[in-house]
Amino acid sequence: MVAKFVSERNIFFLLHEVFEVESLTGYDYYGEHNRKLFDMTVKEAVKLAKNLLFPIFEEMDRNPPELIKGQVRVHPAVKTIMQQLGEGGWIASRVPFEHGGDQLPNLLADTCDFIFQAANYSAFTYAGLTYGASHLIESFGSRKLYEIYVPHMHVGKWQGTMALTEPEAGSSLSDITTTAEPTDQDYYLIRGQKIFISAGDHDGVENVVHLMLAKIAGAPAGVKGISLFVVPKKRIGPEGELEANDVAASGVYHKLGYRGCPIVQLSMGDKNDCRGWLVGQPHEGLKYMFQMMNEARIGVGMGATAMATAAYYAALDYAKTRRQGRKVSHKDPTLPPVLIIEHADVKRMLLFQRAVVEGALAIIMQCSKYVDLMKVVSEAEKEKYHLLLEILTPVAKTYPSEMGIQSISQGLQCLGGSGYCDDYPLEQYYRDCRIHPIHEGTTGIQGMDLLGRKVLMQNGQAFLLYGAELQQATEDADRFGELRKPARQLKEALDRLQQVTQHLLEVAQGKGAELFLADATLYLEFFGIVTVAWQWLLQGIAVQKALQNGVKKGDVNFYEGKMMTLQYFFAYELPKTLGLEKRLLESDGLTVKTQPEHFND
Amino acid sequence: MVAKFVSERNIFFLLHEVFEVESLTGYDYYGEHNRKLFDMTVKEAVKLAKNLLFPIFEEMDRNPPELIKGQVRVHPAVKTIMQQLGEGGWIASRVPFEHGGDQLPNLLADTCDFIFQAANYSAFTYAGLTYGASHLIESFGSRKLYEIYVPHMHVGKWQGTMALTEPEAGSSLSDITTTAEPTDQDYYLIRGQKIFISAGDHDGVENVVHLMLAKIAGAPAGVKGISLFVVPKKRIGPEGELEANDVAASGVYHKLGYRGCPIVQLSMGDKNDCRGWLVGQPHEGLKYMFQMMNEARIGVGMGATAMATAAYYAALDYAKTRRQGRKVSHKDPTLPPVLIIEHADVKRMLLFQRAVVEGALAIIMQCSKYVDLMKVVSEAEKEKYHLLLEILTPVAKTYPSEMGIQSISQGLQCLGGSGYCDDYPLEQYYRDCRIHPIHEGTTGIQGMDLLGRKVLMQNGQAFLLYGAELQQATEDADRFGELRKPARQLKEALDRLQQVTQHLLEVAQGKGAELFLADATLYLEFFGIVTVAWQWLLQGIAVQKALQNGVKKGDVNFYEGKMMTLQYFFAYELPKTLGLEKRLLESDGLTVKTQPEHFND
Repeated sequence: MVAKFVSERNIFFLLHEVFEVESLTGYDYYGEHNRKLFDMTVKEAVKLAKNLLFPIFEEMDRNPPELIKGQVRVHPAVKTIMQQLGEGGWIASRVPFEHGGDQLPNLLADTCDFIFQAANYSAFTYAGLTYGASHLIESFGSRKLYEIYVPHMHVGKWQGTMALTEPEAGSSLSDITTTAEPTDQDYYLIRGQKIFISAGDHDGVENVVHLMLAKIAGAPAGVKGISLFVVPKKRIGPEGELEANDVAASGVYHKLGYRGCPIVQLSMGDKNDCRGWLVGQPHEGLKYMFQMMNEARIGVGMGATAMATAAYYAALDYAKTRRQGRKVSHKDPTLPPVLIIEHADVKRMLLFQRAVVEGALAIIMQCSKYVDLMKVVSEAEKEKYHLLLEILTPVAKTYPSEMGIQSISQGLQCLGGSGYCDDYPLEQYYRDCRIHPIHEGTTGIQGMDLLGRKVLMQNGQAFLLYGAELQQATEDADRFGELRKPARQLKEALDRLQQVTQHLLEVAQGKGAELFLADATLYLEFFGIVTVAWQWLLQGIAVQKALQNGVKKGDVNFYEGKMMTLQYFFAYELPKTLGLEKRLLESDGLTVKTQPEHFND
Repeated sequence: MVAKFVSERNIFFLLHEVFEVESLTGYDYYGEHNRKLFDMTVKEAVKLAKNLLFPIFEEMDRNPPELIKGQVRVHPAVKTIMQQLGEGGWIASRVPFEHGGDQLPNLLADTCDFIFQAANYSAFTYAGLTYGASHLIESFGSRKLYEIYVPHMHVGKWQGTMALTEPEAGSSLSDITTTAEPTDQDYYLIRGQKIFISAGDHDGVENVVHLMLAKIAGAPAGVKGISLFVVPKKRIGPEGELEANDVAASGVYHKLGYRGCPIVQLSMGDKNDCRGWLVGQPHEGLKYMFQMMNEARIGVGMGATAMATAAYYAALDYAKTRRQGRKVSHKDPTLPPVLIIEHADVKRMLLFQRAVVEGALAIIMQCSKYVDLMKVVSEAEKEKYHLLLEILTPVAKTYPSEMGIQSISQGLQCLGGSGYCDDYPLEQYYRDCRIHPIHEGTTGIQGMDLLGRKVLMQNGQAFLLYGAELQQATEDADRFGELRKPARQLKEALDRLQQVTQHLLEVAQGKGAELFLADATLYLEFFGIVTVAWQWLLQGIAVQKALQNGVKKGDVNFYEGKMMTLQYFFAYELPKTLGLEKRLLESDGLTVKTQPEHFND
C-alpha cells in the first residue's frame, strides 16, 4: 500500500466548495471544461503521482546528482518522469489550445502540480521549471524563439531553467556581471558564471534551455541594465542538428536536502562561443523575469505546502498506529498503552500541522484563482486581481516556507526517536523543506517586497483591496452562529494589522527607510498569519454551508475536523500576532542602531 | 586559522561577573581552588577543543558509525578523544579528590563540557555519558561495583551508557519488559532489548558499561517495579580477564545528524548468559536513574546551547565577510555592495541568535551553580537550591533545545544558498540539533514534568522560590537607570506567569488532569521565555556594575553589545508570551475534544 501524501477529500473541498472552480467554466475561455473533467484530471494526477513520483522519493535523495566529465548525472527515473509529464500534457496543461495545451484553469493545473510536489518535490521541479521557462518565451519572446524551443519543452524533451544568481549576486541582482556582446548575427555572445541553477544541467533530457539574465555592453548600472536571453546548452547547428553552445556545467552542489534535483554552477563562453538570443527588448529583462519569478515564488510556497502536507500524513499515520503511554487521567500501568493520537499534546501537534498545511494550500489556491480571473474579467476588474496577487505573492511564498518547516518539525517530533532516523521519511522532509525560505528570494527579501513595495503600490490600493476581501469574508461568516467568534477575531486582527501598517507608514515619513523596513520580516509574519486566518474563515463558511445542506454520514468527521482545525488556528496561531504587534509598534530602531562592532567577542 | 566556536570573553563574563564562581572557593569543599586555576582550566579546555575536537567535527559526520560483524565501528579519533579526555582528568573533573578527581565546581566543569560540546557535540558525548554513568555507580552502587568499573571509566578506557528505551517503551518507561532473574550468585540474568542507546557499542574503548533499567521477576507493575543494573559488554572472568557478557549490538541507526556518535540497538541474553549487577535496592531503579537523567537533561540543554553557539559564530563570520546588496537608504547601484552585517534584517537575525545562545548558556550555568551550592550550604538552604534545580531542569533542557533549532535555522538563513550546502557547517548544525527536543524526554514530556509535577511539588514551594529569585533580580536591576524598563517588563511578565499558573491550577481542580495538562508544552514555552529574560536581566546587572567601575576601551563594544542583545530579548522575545498567555487562559479543551476520527480524510 502506498502511503498517503495528499487528501483528495480536502482537495475537492477546496476546489469545489471554497474556490468554486466550476464557476470558471461560465467564462468563454474556460467554456469547454466541466466539473467531471476537472475531477478526472485531479484523480489522474494523484494516480500518476502515486505510481511514478512517490515510489522514488527516497531513492532520489539517497542517490544525488553527480558531475561526471562535465555532465551532471541524475537518477535514471528523471528521464521517464519528464517524458511522462510531457507527453501526458502535464507541463503544458495551462497553455492555450491554440499552442497545443489543455487551457486548464491555473486553479486546477496548480492543484495538480501540488499533488506532484507532495509526492516528490525534487522530481517535479524539472517539469515545473520547464513550464515556467517556456511561459516566459511564450509571453515575451519572438515567434521564432517560440517555435525553436517551446514545443520541445512542452513535451519534456528539453529542460527549462531560470539562470539569475551569480557568485557575487544572489539577493542583489543589480550586481550581475554576465555580459552579452552584440554580433552582426541574430545572437549575442554570452560570457559569465551562474551559480545555484536548479536543473541547470542533467542527462535526463536532450537539451537545457536557460532563461538567463545578462548585461549588454554599455547598459545602465543596476537592475535597469539587465536583459533576458535564451541561452541553450545546445543550439541548432547549420544542418538543424544540436551542437554544443559553450555552456559548461562547472560544479554541482552538495545540499542538505532537495537532493533529487541538481543545483548547478554554469560557466558560459569559456571558448568565446556561447550564443544567447535576446528575449523582448534590451534592458527589460528583470521585468520579464519577474513573471517567472512571481510564478516561481508562488510555486515555492506551493512546494513547501506540498512537502509539509506529505509530512503531516506520515506523522498522522504513525500517530494512528503507534501505542505508547496512557492518558494523563488514566495512569494505571496495568492498562494497555493507548495510540499516541489519544494524547492531547499529540493531537495539538497534528492540529498544528493540519492548520498550517490546509491553510497554506488555501492561500496558494486563492492566488491561482486570481490568476484565472485576471484572464477572463474586464480590464477594471483585472487590475483588482492583479493587485491582490501582487500583495499576496510574498505571503504565499513565505508563510508556507517558514511555517512548513515548523510543521514538518512537529511531524518529526510526533515520531520521537524514529523521526530522527531514516527508516521514516520525516527526516528527509525536514532536510528538503529548509530550501524554501532561501530560494526565489529569501524571507528577508519577501518582507521588504511586501512592506516596501506592495503595501505602498498605487497609493496603497492593493492593501485596501486586501482589507476589503477580508472584511467581506467576516461579513459572510457572521451569518453562521459557529463562525461569529472567529469572524470577530479576524476583524479585530485586521484592524490591528491596519493600525500597525499606518504606524509603519508614519515611521517611513518621520524616520526614514531604514527604520521603516527594519522589522519588515516580522510585518510579513503578522500579515501571513492574518491572511491564513482569512483562508480558514473562508473554509469555515464552506463547511457551514455544507452542514446547512446536510452532509453524508461519511463526511461528518471531515467537516467536524475542519471546524476543529479552524478553531485551532484561531486559538493557537492568531494570538501570535499579539507579540508581533507589540514589537512592530515600538520602532525603536534597535537593529539599525546595533553596529557590527557590537558583535566583537 | 581555526574558526571561532565559543567566546572566551563571554564565558569569563558569565563565570566571574554574573555567577561569581570565585565565591565558591569560600566554602571548604572548594577551598583549594582559586580564580587563576579556574581561568587556566577554561583556557586549557578551549585549547583542547580547538586542537582535538573541532578539526574532526565534519569528518565524523561524513563517516558515520557502522555495524560490522557485531561490532560498531566509529571514527578512529574516538579512541584518542576518550584517552585524552580521560587521562587529562576531564571526565572526572567533578569527582571528589578522595576518588581521584579534581573536585571542580560544576559551574566550571559544566563550562568546560560546554566548550567541548561547542567544538564537537558527538565527540564529547562519549565522555559526558561516561561521567554520568560513573556518577550513578558512585552515588548508589556498592563499593565493589565502584572499584570494578569506575576507575576505568574515569580514564576513558571504558564507556558508560544509560540504557532505558525499548522498542515498546520510549517515553513510557513503565512499559519496559527487559527482565532480571535472580541467581544464587551476586548477579542477575538479564534478558531483553534496548534501542536508541547512545554510544551503546563502539570500538573506541575496551569495554562498555550499561546502566540499565530492568524488571526483577515478580516486581510491581509500572515504574514502581523498575530496578537499575550495571550490565557490562564484557565482564570480569574467573582469571580477571575480560569475557563476553552476552550483550549483542544488533543494529545501529542511520540518523539525520549527531552522526559522530552511534545510537545502538542492544540484545541481552540471547545465550542466556547476560549478567547484571543490581545498583542499590530492588525496584528503586527509576529514582536512581533520575539523578543521571536530570544531569543528562541539563546536559542536553547545554549541548543544544553549544551547537547553537558554534552555529552563531559561523553565521557571524559569514556576515562579517560576505558583501551583498546596499542599505535600503542608499540604493545607488554604482556604490559598492556592503557587508551583509550592515543590513538591519541580518543584524536582527544575529541578535536573535546571540540572545538565544547567551541567554540559554546563562540558564545552564545558573543550574550548575545551584548544584554547587547544594553541596556546600546548610540542609535548609540545600532544599531551596534543590527545588530551584527541580523546577528549572525541564526549562534548561527545553528552551535551548527548541530555541537552539530556531537559532541555528536563522544562522543558516544568514548564509542564504550557501547555508544549504555542505561547504559550510550550518547545514550540519541544523541536522545535529534536531535530536535535542527528542532525547532525554521529549518537549511534551518536559512540559508535563514542569506543570504536572514541578509546579505542584511541595505545595508549590519550588514555584514560589522561583518567583522570589526573579523578584529579587528585578529589585536589583531597578537600581540601574538603564535596566529600569526591562526590570519592569520582567516583573510584569512574572505577574502574568503567576496568573496563568493560578488559572491552570483552578482548571486542574475544576476540569481535571486532561485539560490541566493539555497545553503544558505552551506553558513550558512561556516559562522558558520568562526564565531567559531573568537571566538576561542578571547579565544586565553585571554589565551595569562593570560600567560603573569603568571598563577598558577594548571592552566597550562587548558591554554595549550585551546591552543591545538584552534589549533585543525584551523587545522581540518577551512579547511572544502575550500570545501564549492568551491561549493558556482559554482552557477550552480543544485538543482534548478533538477525536482521532476528526483526522480521517
